[in-house]
Amino acid sequence: MAVHVVLFQPEIPANTGNIARTCLATDVHLHLIRPLGFSTDDKMLRRSGLDYWHDVTISYYDSIDELYEKYANGEFYYIENFGTKYYSDFDFSDSDKDLFFVFGRETNGIPKELLKGKEDRCLRIHMTDKVRSLNLSNTAAIIVYDVLKQQGFPGLK
Amino acid sequence: MAVHVVLFQPEIPANTGNIARTCLATDVHLHLIRPLGFSTDDKMLRRSGLDYWHDVTISYYDSIDELYEKYANGEFYYIENFGTKYYSDFDFSDSDKDLFFVFGRETNGIPKELLKGKEDRCLRIHMTDKVRSLNLSNTAAIIVYDVLKQQGFPGLK
Repeated sequence: MAVHVVLFQPEIPANTGNIARTCLATDVHLHLIRPLGFSTDDKMLRRSGLDYWHDVTISYYDSIDELYEKYANGEFYYIENFGTKYYSDFDFSDSDKDLFFVFGRETNGIPKELLKGKEDRCLRIHMTDKVRSLNLSNTAAIIVYDVLKQQGFPGLK
Repeated sequence: MAVHVVLFQPEIPANTGNIARTCLATDVHLHLIRPLGFSTDDKMLRRSGLDYWHDVTISYYDSIDELYEKYANGEFYYIENFGTKYYSDFDFSDSDKDLFFVFGRETNGIPKELLKGKEDRCLRIHMTDKVRSLNLSNTAAIIVYDVLKQQGFPGLK
């Protein structure tokens, strides 16, 4: 059992950087689906203060199908308002599967065609109608820590 | 009963901006203790894309004592590694008090002298020793959503 974070074509380097930091803080594997909206070369990493980047377990993919193939036994969840369920409706405490939480692009989320038939695996975050969404890295932090809390923070101090 | 976020002398505008967005998304009152490491004039807000800033309920203070005086019946909690308790050790589900969660500066947190005698109100976040801390706005999102989840997300969709 392990928790995985998937970023689908992330656009803003500061968000991916903050999420990478959360992954390093929680021993969570980070998966990035290309294209990324930024370079991950050393110059960019230094400029963004992402000196911890190379310590994070990160995998890159050219499509989400590539990820599905690699983790055929994984359980995939999508953080989107596409379905009717809230993240707090799910109990991950007893899961012995690899759990993947997929987060979409900052501007327009996960493409609808990727979510068809997966409505029951879409997780909404409770919020007022005063904002369209939370910041992407905040959303990821909320989900990761909620799942880890349910599982008793294995391996963390 | 209400949840409040307090930022003690925040330094980085993007973090405060993301936290303000989380507060707007959750009807949480934001309290900022001066000095701030940035301007909140309209030019800065526009440049940072904080067009929602004026919709957030924000109060400003010249010292944390000013906040303590204004909310003499509030319960204050401090997100710091100063004590031995974790945020997950606390049950806020039945609280009928105004709950204040205080977050320190990005560089050096909350001054130790402000925390003396308040060890039992300090909340640690579980993490590996591979990072010094999480991003400030991520930390705030984790705490706010954990407390609201315990309280059943009152008023949120």
